[in-house]
Amino acid sequence: MASNSIGKVFVLTTFGESHGRAIGGVIDGCPANITVDYALIHTKLKQRKTAPFPENRRKEDDAVEFLSGILDGKTTGMPIAFVIANRDVHSEDYLQEHQVLKPSHAHYVYWQKYGLFDHRGGGRASARETASWVVAGCFAMMLLKQYNIHIEAYTTQIGKVKWEHSLEEIEGMIEENNLHCPDTVVAQQMLDELEETAKNKNTIGCKVGCVVKNVPVGLGEPVFDKLSANLAKAIMSIPAAKGFEYGLGFEAAEKQGSEANDIFLPNFRTKTNFSGGIQAGISNGEPIYFSVAFKPIPSIMQDQPTVNTNGEFCILHGTGRHDICAAPRVLPVVEAMAALTLADQLIND
Amino acid sequence: MASNSIGKVFVLTTFGESHGRAIGGVIDGCPANITVDYALIHTKLKQRKTAPFPENRRKEDDAVEFLSGILDGKTTGMPIAFVIANRDVHSEDYLQEHQVLKPSHAHYVYWQKYGLFDHRGGGRASARETASWVVAGCFAMMLLKQYNIHIEAYTTQIGKVKWEHSLEEIEGMIEENNLHCPDTVVAQQMLDELEETAKNKNTIGCKVGCVVKNVPVGLGEPVFDKLSANLAKAIMSIPAAKGFEYGLGFEAAEKQGSEANDIFLPNFRTKTNFSGGIQAGISNGEPIYFSVAFKPIPSIMQDQPTVNTNGEFCILHGTGRHDICAAPRVLPVVEAMAALTLADQLIND
Amino acid sequence: MASNSIGKVFVLTTFGESHGRAIGGVIDGCPANITVDYALIHTKLKQRKTAPFPENRRKEDDAVEFLSGILDGKTTGMPIAFVIANRDVHSEDYLQEHQVLKPSHAHYVYWQKYGLFDHRGGGRASARETASWVVAGCFAMMLLKQYNIHIEAYTTQIGKVKWEHSLEEIEGMIEENNLHCPDTVVAQQMLDELEETAKNKNTIGCKVGCVVKNVPVGLGEPVFDKLSANLAKAIMSIPAAKGFEYGLGFEAAEKQGSEANDIFLPNFRTKTNFSGGIQAGISNGEPIYFSVAFKPIPSIMQDQPTVNTNGEFCILHGTGRHDICAAPRVLPVVEAMAALTLADQLIND
Amino acid sequence: MASNSIGKVFVLTTFGESHGRAIGGVIDGCPANITVDYALIHTKLKQRKTAPFPENRRKEDDAVEFLSGILDGKTTGMPIAFVIANRDVHSEDYLQEHQVLKPSHAHYVYWQKYGLFDHRGGGRASARETASWVVAGCFAMMLLKQYNIHIEAYTTQIGKVKWEHSLEEIEGMIEENNLHCPDTVVAQQMLDELEETAKNKNTIGCKVGCVVKNVPVGLGEPVFDKLSANLAKAIMSIPAAKGFEYGLGFEAAEKQGSEANDIFLPNFRTKTNFSGGIQAGISNGEPIYFSVAFKPIPSIMQDQPTVNTNGEFCILHGTGRHDICAAPRVLPVVEAMAALTLADQLIND
Repeated sequence: MASNSIGKVFVLTTFGESHGRAIGGVIDGCPANITVDYALIHTKLKQRKTAPFPENRRKEDDAVEFLSGILDGKTTGMPIAFVIANRDVHSEDYLQEHQVLKPSHAHYVYWQKYGLFDHRGGGRASARETASWVVAGCFAMMLLKQYNIHIEAYTTQIGKVKWEHSLEEIEGMIEENNLHCPDTVVAQQMLDELEETAKNKNTIGCKVGCVVKNVPVGLGEPVFDKLSANLAKAIMSIPAAKGFEYGLGFEAAEKQGSEANDIFLPNFRTKTNFSGGIQAGISNGEPIYFSVAFKPIPSIMQDQPTVNTNGEFCILHGTGRHDICAAPRVLPVVEAMAALTLADQLIND
Repeated sequence: MASNSIGKVFVLTTFGESHGRAIGGVIDGCPANITVDYALIHTKLKQRKTAPFPENRRKEDDAVEFLSGILDGKTTGMPIAFVIANRDVHSEDYLQEHQVLKPSHAHYVYWQKYGLFDHRGGGRASARETASWVVAGCFAMMLLKQYNIHIEAYTTQIGKVKWEHSLEEIEGMIEENNLHCPDTVVAQQMLDELEETAKNKNTIGCKVGCVVKNVPVGLGEPVFDKLSANLAKAIMSIPAAKGFEYGLGFEAAEKQGSEANDIFLPNFRTKTNFSGGIQAGISNGEPIYFSVAFKPIPSIMQDQPTVNTNGEFCILHGTGRHDICAAPRVLPVVEAMAALTLADQLIND
Repeated sequence: MASNSIGKVFVLTTFGESHGRAIGGVIDGCPANITVDYALIHTKLKQRKTAPFPENRRKEDDAVEFLSGILDGKTTGMPIAFVIANRDVHSEDYLQEHQVLKPSHAHYVYWQKYGLFDHRGGGRASARETASWVVAGCFAMMLLKQYNIHIEAYTTQIGKVKWEHSLEEIEGMIEENNLHCPDTVVAQQMLDELEETAKNKNTIGCKVGCVVKNVPVGLGEPVFDKLSANLAKAIMSIPAAKGFEYGLGFEAAEKQGSEANDIFLPNFRTKTNFSGGIQAGISNGEPIYFSVAFKPIPSIMQDQPTVNTNGEFCILHGTGRHDICAAPRVLPVVEAMAALTLADQLIND
Repeated sequence: MASNSIGKVFVLTTFGESHGRAIGGVIDGCPANITVDYALIHTKLKQRKTAPFPENRRKEDDAVEFLSGILDGKTTGMPIAFVIANRDVHSEDYLQEHQVLKPSHAHYVYWQKYGLFDHRGGGRASARETASWVVAGCFAMMLLKQYNIHIEAYTTQIGKVKWEHSLEEIEGMIEENNLHCPDTVVAQQMLDELEETAKNKNTIGCKVGCVVKNVPVGLGEPVFDKLSANLAKAIMSIPAAKGFEYGLGFEAAEKQGSEANDIFLPNFRTKTNFSGGIQAGISNGEPIYFSVAFKPIPSIMQDQPTVNTNGEFCILHGTGRHDICAAPRVLPVVEAMAALTLADQLIND
């Protein structure tokens, strides 16, 4: 059934396969008269393409072609359709996968669900899909900027290398490295970890944080469209996401009420922000911050035992051009999904 | 805007405030000819009412009255409306809260969003709402049982007391205590922790696990209705939820690809289940397991400094009848939200 | 699948069978701080109950019980649940219909679709359902009144008796009869037609007009939520509706462009209103007017040949307590559906 | 707000303006493994382009480019995106309309709603949009053909020239003219009427009928997704549609119950089909037939008085390349909207 849309009133619908002609999307519900910030789109798409390792990555210019909804550089209130052509497609890399079930990949479940699977680069399950999310997220950001809302994602963990930090550090952070980890020493350790992983023909998991500043009070709904629940859905839609937490997150399980409550100040702000900017599903005016864990990319450059569609054992060789870690490329994707969620609530409100 | 419904084709809409006349809901999309298992509803609602501490809890019989959609003990395919009357309402307990903003509660954000807040017991933000979720979840379970799907939630952490366990332990578990923690020694430690917390007029956080067995392959959608994303939304809709993870969860951030991939067996099952039963957003036939962290209940029996709606400092005294921990009462709620999510996908499929 | 809701952001979900315990609904998305006009609800429900013929009609007090969403006489922004008990149920009247397929009724299609049908008074297909629509429509009207929008339905045809009228006559009309036909002479002819029909133990079709005044410019969407299309859906959802037209309606098929265009005045109003207040799917500030045709009530007090569920011929005797014409009872239902459609667009906008 | 999608589980989202770069759409929810019938798409698009008058029509090849969702000539279950480039754009024809409000057109309401309007050929309100509907409708037809369901639209009225016909004539009809009016004598009269209208630089209204054969019993839902109501919405979404009726339609208002009921036969078919194949909102296995009235195209080749956006009188000259009648070009559009509605219900069921 139809399941390629997200949002209720600011809606993104996407399409396209990794090795098809193009990917793209339609943004429906974007208000009229927003000046299109093409530089933002360019910057975020470029950020999504760039990673330190490996170096043989698929080379796509990710040029976005807009087909509708924009006139004289402004949105018209009509649906904004965009297309990103697939150019650097090496489908021959995937020939061995024609009947082979790749471990921890979409192949098996697609085969069972649809009776077929597009072995070429993951088909619709490819992370290439997220380029469209980034484009749409930029339009959401243009809307959010009118309210001075700012979203920033950053890497907090690569494998066992973690950036331990306080909330205060997030609020004032400056990132000068492409992992967007504010602590430059830790950032270098993360890069070393990535290099080591690449050398070992392996991949590695990571954890990404995100902070949203200047959110007005009142976004989100009390029961089934809680801002926290909709953020969880949007973020957990990102390929390889395994966990989501906001505010104290899993640490909250250890706390006592007297330690975890946020006490009000006379200006209705709170002394602490254990709640992570969302109270009872609704934004309370404090910065929203959340984290997401990503598993290691399952495509590794090593031989792996598996079975084919006949259930016969076989060996899958490590080929193709794959990232070794979701971070840092996933950072603009996290920001985009947060922006789409907030924009949808903002228009609803 | 409308936000009191969850699901696309098996849809629950709820209504009611904690201290209003009644709470209840409408289940729309439940197939015809399912025999209503009233005993299941009774058992799950009773489980939701029962906790070891405190003893002065609100006494509601939680009797469900069905108004439609059932004929001769079977569903008819028509919407099933049900009502649970509010009887044991002590609104006078909340008089002091009339203009007082309760820390880490819904009051402030409701006031800002709607221009008013129902100070009586939390209004719509009360966890009493979840009784309706449990009723609807039972109908989802009746549907799932036709496929032999079984859902079980269990307590894995109360404060600093944790049940460390392997996946195998979950699969074969038997729980003989009302915390539904399979390890009876740990369960007793958890009870001690709850007792200590109650004695200190405090509250405490917890972590709950849930396993779904016998899920057919193919539930969930590839992009924006991933089973994992929809589960995340449903579970994060539960009051006090701060984090969600499935499969390896946050631990995945530490792993390497070669450690985290699930290798196929000739019968298309996998040797390990790091994926937690969901691959690329779609069930793969392995048990689905996930965890959720809950913050401590913010209503504590202690004096707390706060401000009123004029922004003046005041003291909020600890009154009312509140739980001291989300667990174990939240267990059937977690099961219900999982059941609703799966039923929606099952009918979609 | 779920199909008991209408609206996108101002949503009505209904439940209940004609001979079950109750009917009712949940209104989700109604803004906070609207003073509930109970007198309006009472008036419209009474209008829905009242018809000149027959006199042995089912006697329901149609007392509405509100369960949620209202505090101190005002809406709270939370879902408004309401229940109307079924009291005057004579299910024994329907015993003969247990296996008998009533001509031009829901029985056969329900039986095929759900494997069963509720023979008692039509089950969910009964026009009793529309009492819930009227209640919800009143809340929509309370919202519309804040914009001075006014909706009025009137009978324009009973059988072959027609009220021929100009648009001007609609705009200034006063109805002093319970058919709400402004021309008192024609109204009496209509009543005579109804009386004659009742005497003949027959039923009769009718046509109803509706005008909406003071609609602001801009309601409705350009492509798939045209105000005209959503009105058509809402109105055609009324039991027995067979046709919908607005503005020139079917007469437009005969016209030439030079006759049918509405020429602008300097104040942006139009000289004529052939468009019926909706241009390209969006309200243009002129009065919206539309018509709907209803077939004769299929339950007649005569013997009818039919078949039972075994496909055997049998005779269905005329029993039960049925209206002989959709008008005038359908008038507040038409208004309610128009109000719900407009309110949904108004909040969207 | 988002309003460029139609359908619940078989969903079409469209985009594009008449004089933008392209129009197109995304079909979401189309099942996998349907062989794409490109010839059908070609035929229906060609039919949508072809009309006897005028001869200076915009020349678009309407070549459809598919971007996704098709592999080896079959649908994959993934969203099907398609684009139709705009090539023969003469935006200069519309220069005079920059600040001029075209009578009975979208300009004024778009201007009020969005603060701007795309004067070039109607922007999103152009009937060019319907080319995308035809493409999507063809996919719906491919699905319906698996159930042997067949849809056929035909012209029944051009201005005052009407084809009076019985239901039997529709069922067995063969159309050999491009108006798809089975009676060749009447068809010629209609052509004469069109020629006369063109000569007079005027436009003319029309009425179109449509019949759907071999519909299984059970499509549609009892209350708010009645097949009749959803058909009404889909059909009334077509530009220039002013009225919709099915079965007896407006004629039903004149009938008595004893004349209008459809009596069952032992095989559960009915002797007559006054109901038009839909009973209580659900298909009953008889042919579905309905009619739609279209107003004359408001763009006429004559001078018209109007006002500009300053409210000053001015004259709008007749320019551009416009049809003189919705029929026959609208026929495949009517079929497409019917097909989309039925496909959505068929998958739901």
